Amino acid sequence: MCTSSSASSTIWAPHLHRIHVILHPHCWPTTDLRGLPTLRFRFASRPARTFLALSEKHNHTATNCHGPQLPSPSIGCRPRRGPHARLIDGKAIADTIRSEIAAEVAAMKQQYGLTPGLAVVLVGSRKDSETYVRSKKKACAEVGFDSYGTDLPADVSEEELLKVVESYNADPRVHGILVQLPLPKHISEKRILDAISIDKDVDGFHPLNIGSLAMRGRDPLFVPCTPKGCIELLERMKVPISGRRACVIGRSNIVGMPAALLLQRRDATVTMVHSKTPDAQRICSEADIVIAACGVAEMVTGDWIKPGAVVIDVGINAKDDPTAKKGYRLVGDVEFAGAAAKASLITPVPGGVGPMTIAMLLQNTLEGARRAAKGESAGKH
Amino acid sequence: MCTSSSASSTIWAPHLHRIHVILHPHCWPTTDLRGLPTLRFRFASRPARTFLALSEKHNHTATNCHGPQLPSPSIGCRPRRGPHARLIDGKAIADTIRSEIAAEVAAMKQQYGLTPGLAVVLVGSRKDSETYVRSKKKACAEVGFDSYGTDLPADVSEEELLKVVESYNADPRVHGILVQLPLPKHISEKRILDAISIDKDVDGFHPLNIGSLAMRGRDPLFVPCTPKGCIELLERMKVPISGRRACVIGRSNIVGMPAALLLQRRDATVTMVHSKTPDAQRICSEADIVIAACGVAEMVTGDWIKPGAVVIDVGINAKDDPTAKKGYRLVGDVEFAGAAAKASLITPVPGGVGPMTIAMLLQNTLEGARRAAKGESAGKH
Repeated sequence: MCTSSSASSTIWAPHLHRIHVILHPHCWPTTDLRGLPTLRFRFASRPARTFLALSEKHNHTATNCHGPQLPSPSIGCRPRRGPHARLIDGKAIADTIRSEIAAEVAAMKQQYGLTPGLAVVLVGSRKDSETYVRSKKKACAEVGFDSYGTDLPADVSEEELLKVVESYNADPRVHGILVQLPLPKHISEKRILDAISIDKDVDGFHPLNIGSLAMRGRDPLFVPCTPKGCIELLERMKVPISGRRACVIGRSNIVGMPAALLLQRRDATVTMVHSKTPDAQRICSEADIVIAACGVAEMVTGDWIKPGAVVIDVGINAKDDPTAKKGYRLVGDVEFAGAAAKASLITPVPGGVGPMTIAMLLQNTLEGARRAAKGESAGKH
Repeated sequence: MCTSSSASSTIWAPHLHRIHVILHPHCWPTTDLRGLPTLRFRFASRPARTFLALSEKHNHTATNCHGPQLPSPSIGCRPRRGPHARLIDGKAIADTIRSEIAAEVAAMKQQYGLTPGLAVVLVGSRKDSETYVRSKKKACAEVGFDSYGTDLPADVSEEELLKVVESYNADPRVHGILVQLPLPKHISEKRILDAISIDKDVDGFHPLNIGSLAMRGRDPLFVPCTPKGCIELLERMKVPISGRRACVIGRSNIVGMPAALLLQRRDATVTMVHSKTPDAQRICSEADIVIAACGVAEMVTGDWIKPGAVVIDVGINAKDDPTAKKGYRLVGDVEFAGAAAKASLITPVPGGVGPMTIAMLLQNTLEGARRAAKGESAGKH
């Protein structure tokens, strides 16, 4: 028998097979059930047909989760085979953006005789940094940019590195300068980043750019690539931001903080949770948009996600997996299966935010070149 | 008869005298009543003694609100005479800070032969701006600062105003420059504020200062005065900030945004609500610390306040009041009586944040002078 209740959200008997009813946001508008994320209904002898018909009438999506005794799909339920959320295909979106950039580069060459140029400075020989730098240069070549590179030994002096930065500041062929982080400990990251001309600060890490990002009525010359990529994903997926609750998990200068400022600029109501937040899960579970950038593998589980939320997973962590060829697999800061069962849209890891970061770096460099072509400059620094 | 109920939070008959029971945060931990801010109990013929005894047993504070038929104080109730919250006396705290500054100025004169100097630039003759400028100059004199002033006509050109700013930038006697806002419409506020040397940007509005405020691992040279004053009030009242939920109402460059960044830096979990937030009241009612800076008279009512929260009211609005001498009285962005009945600490208006703003301006100028005395400079701009 299918037992429904208008007073309780969890009537279930775990030893029986269950039906999950995912409520549409505006269903049952006249009862207290509105907003309850998931109702579980016990059924035994009587078929679930009655309940499912009722559920359809009330405009729900009824999904049978487990077990072979599924009611027939003809009465409006579909067997659960994978996550409920649609995937946000960051790779495909990044490819589209790269094609758009390549087209504009071709036009720019014709109109202004100008080729965007990106300079990448690498200090030392960290394997991961070398990989990133290589893929950035490759991406430049693919869209028709010129790329310039300076590789310096790990023991280079701060002064020498500064000289390299300043030579690129002065070089009119260069529209973006990227110093690959992290730098060796004897070099002040702050001093190097501050030395990059804000006209060429394609990483967007200069405090003048961050300040303009925070202030109403101002526009930064460049927005940091990864958070910019997150917003681009939301916008290309037509996710409404204005008026929505957003939760940013993590408050790094590189992702969390600028992501929060970007959402804020688009009229979201933003809460940034961090290691000192005692009830991060509860706060996150109220958010329509979640950007996870805490750097902790699979910290954000399904419990953190409001049904129907949009989840952007910035994390990329190696997790031991003896069944995988390399002995590990890449996971995000979000526990994918659990979150995907609750979210309406979610980025996979890999293939979500990752490909967007380089696409945004190219976009920033193109913007720098565009401003140079038009003779615009911040005129400072 | 005293009617109590374990199922409803508001049993009352407005024509009768009432008892308010303010629940301690952790009372009735086994019932659904936990967390209900206020219970109202009707009483008529029977004395309220039974209920109050019960209430004491359950570890509440019982407070009788109205009417002459109060039960005797001996049974644990005290007549309600004013708000429950303690007042944060901004004027007294600002006076303490000014004395501290005056003492340091005297020491600085002796040690370095240096007197802090503040330059105030006033354009036009707005009555309110003239009042502010006058009180700033007076405050300078009281702590032993030199003050310099330039009054310009409302039709002064942007170039001429820039020249004044630059002359103060170059003047070693001046450690802080303040251009009184708002400026006439033909002048770009952005251009003028950007022209102030960040070493003398005592208003803290330069994007480089705001950027450093937003970024972890960086420190701004100056923090905007009003939000700095809000934090100073919290710190002097020994309000814990780390790990607490904070709600900032309003997102102006001058108050809301930097206040949120300051709370964030102190490890609060901050949500900034604004005109596009659909459920601002609910969000605010979860906050341990509320900073109201929305510029709307008495918008934040008691319903917005979590029991025991700390409320900082930045607003200052004139409200018609035929009983007042001037025909109006000053009110904040918070409806004081309602909020004070819920909060543990609250700033009055006037006499709360207002006096702190000028005290913080003096503190910023003193910091500028201190850096000048030690030969420190941002060396930029």
